[in-house]
Amino acid sequence: MNQPTRLSQRAATMPASPIRRLAPYAVAARKRGLEVHGLNIGQPDIPTPQVILDRFRQYTAPYVPYGPSQGLPEYIEALRTYYAGFGARLAPEDIFVTTAGSEAIQFTLGALCDPGDQVIVFEPFYTNYNGFAAMTGVECVPVTTRGEDGYHLPERAAIEAKIGPRTRAILICSPNNPTGTVYTDAEIERLAAICRDRGLYLVSDEVYREFTYDGRTSRSLLTFDGLDDLAIVVDSVSKRYSLCGARIGNIVSKNRPFMDAIMRFGQARLCPPTLEQFACTALTEVPASYTSGVLAEYQKRRDVVFGALSRMPGVRVRKPEGAFYICTGLPVDDANAFAIYLLTEYSQGGETVMVAPLDGFYATPGLGRDEVRLAYVLECGKLERAMDILAGALTAYRARVGA
Amino acid sequence: MNQPTRLSQRAATMPASPIRRLAPYAVAARKRGLEVHGLNIGQPDIPTPQVILDRFRQYTAPYVPYGPSQGLPEYIEALRTYYAGFGARLAPEDIFVTTAGSEAIQFTLGALCDPGDQVIVFEPFYTNYNGFAAMTGVECVPVTTRGEDGYHLPERAAIEAKIGPRTRAILICSPNNPTGTVYTDAEIERLAAICRDRGLYLVSDEVYREFTYDGRTSRSLLTFDGLDDLAIVVDSVSKRYSLCGARIGNIVSKNRPFMDAIMRFGQARLCPPTLEQFACTALTEVPASYTSGVLAEYQKRRDVVFGALSRMPGVRVRKPEGAFYICTGLPVDDANAFAIYLLTEYSQGGETVMVAPLDGFYATPGLGRDEVRLAYVLECGKLERAMDILAGALTAYRARVGA
Repeated sequence: MNQPTRLSQRAATMPASPIRRLAPYAVAARKRGLEVHGLNIGQPDIPTPQVILDRFRQYTAPYVPYGPSQGLPEYIEALRTYYAGFGARLAPEDIFVTTAGSEAIQFTLGALCDPGDQVIVFEPFYTNYNGFAAMTGVECVPVTTRGEDGYHLPERAAIEAKIGPRTRAILICSPNNPTGTVYTDAEIERLAAICRDRGLYLVSDEVYREFTYDGRTSRSLLTFDGLDDLAIVVDSVSKRYSLCGARIGNIVSKNRPFMDAIMRFGQARLCPPTLEQFACTALTEVPASYTSGVLAEYQKRRDVVFGALSRMPGVRVRKPEGAFYICTGLPVDDANAFAIYLLTEYSQGGETVMVAPLDGFYATPGLGRDEVRLAYVLECGKLERAMDILAGALTAYRARVGA
Repeated sequence: MNQPTRLSQRAATMPASPIRRLAPYAVAARKRGLEVHGLNIGQPDIPTPQVILDRFRQYTAPYVPYGPSQGLPEYIEALRTYYAGFGARLAPEDIFVTTAGSEAIQFTLGALCDPGDQVIVFEPFYTNYNGFAAMTGVECVPVTTRGEDGYHLPERAAIEAKIGPRTRAILICSPNNPTGTVYTDAEIERLAAICRDRGLYLVSDEVYREFTYDGRTSRSLLTFDGLDDLAIVVDSVSKRYSLCGARIGNIVSKNRPFMDAIMRFGQARLCPPTLEQFACTALTEVPASYTSGVLAEYQKRRDVVFGALSRMPGVRVRKPEGAFYICTGLPVDDANAFAIYLLTEYSQGGETVMVAPLDGFYATPGLGRDEVRLAYVLECGKLERAMDILAGALTAYRARVGA
């Protein structure tokens, strides 16, 4: 009798999410009665626009049917209006609605890469790219960006050095998760030139598009000329409208063979959620004041977190330009051990903090071991409290380990 | 300058869905003013239970946050109650909530198989298994079942003949899509014995569990003894509660390493839809009369379709035991051409019918070329009308092609 205990190599190499793998410690901490300030995950606490919440309640069909694989026509129209708002003129067939940005990335990797193919990413990078890559058998080849450069891109030669015969695409995220960096037009053009010369696709994850600070803007890849055949944009309403749990994202590209492949991937899974798309058709009615209000709030939060971290001894930090994350070096040997310490041993007045260790956001072994990502997704008062706790914990931890 | 026109081999081999690939013809037919009776897709017209629709409207949080990767605890509790209702005692960690049955199948294949590995399926089989297999690089190896056997399983030797060194699992669906066959306890036990002896997993797609006719029941794999290490059940609320567009499914297994791998796959995509899970917690309050009423209705529909097909000259058909599909051989050479003819050339009083050609439900080339799948998901009056149209179209088509 055989036991079917062997799972796939893919299952064995599939990484646990560095954002979520500490969740059991947080559950246990909460069971002990602690309040845990969750800075580990980009889960905004900002209310969803009322027009979208209202639209949910206007769904009156007697059942919830499949929609078209590419998305509801009325939602695709709403997205066209949204993209036209910053100058991207799209045909309906340039848009494919997905089950969140997650599926958009997964389908894109699947359509461009076979198992063993490679995609260039700039580390530290959104850790779940590793997960989607493991699922599809794709290798993420890292080009390292550094805090001292504000996590901006290196020169062309450093990027081209990583391109090999199995490289299929360059994958970027701007405004960036986890660094908060917003790439300049010159940086995007540098990448586009490389992709053009080397026959690669340029995949741009723009789910934080509106989240830019200090008067900056983030220019969409869709508005650069002459890139129709190589440009692929991955998008989502999750962060823009505080709809992380709605699982509505989309792919945009004017490359027809690519979009045809995405359609066939999409048909296999039938359709993205119907009710949520119906609600999101209201996005054309979200007032501009909603977005500007959200931005002002996040900029205040960034300032609270950046200011507090800057004052902590031994902490290395750069002011983020966008998104709602900050990467920070800590005066500890092992940020993972420190993150667990926060959840299992340390507390201040019945409260503690949950952070995401940054090593899982790098592909190069050994990098990020003393770094964490903080998501500033709580209101300023709570963030101030969380920063006090973090400062106290660093002092206590360093005293304990004799640092 | 290189054009990045090459897509992946995976994209090239990804099949278009035979259920959905005729959709553009149907759209064009409707634009011409025709009423198209859609028998191509298992999209029930039965209302969702009112308690679930009501629960949607009771969602009052100001935003829609991520839930846990494995699903909302309250929804997992509701599922435990549901499974206990037919004798399957599950721990919370035996259940993982997915974005519909689609993701459940995809994650399961990914956890069990590496690219090039094989899964035994019984053809004709749910065509989207091919899509998920193409996405994950897995090969579906078919064992043919035949109409003259009521699409029941062949003897052990015929199944074992298809098992090779790269076989990782047997994948079944009962009640079956597309054949409507309900496997007997003896058939399940035969498969379980093979899996036990050969070190394979047994994956059971039970999304049509309640849909059984003429007093039959379908016994869940979860209620067979001694299979905890090899049994994996794939499930969904799509058909059970007319929630196809809700995209809520789940995986059930007591195999811990497998469920641990599923958790890591699931963490990468963050979570299934939050609002839909919230609504589905009401499934414990769905009255038994809802399910019995739905069954009685589908049994009437089956009788209408089976009766009408039985009376058509040259049509070969078996009475389905469950689900809401019927496979039928037609007196035509090419069911694909006939399906397109229905949408482009034929009509009766401004109406026509859309069917799913069955060749895409087989993996063996050449099989199913003169067969179609009909989903009896319309009310009896419409089904009678659709059968009249189908009969008329067959006569007209055969006259035209000189058959």
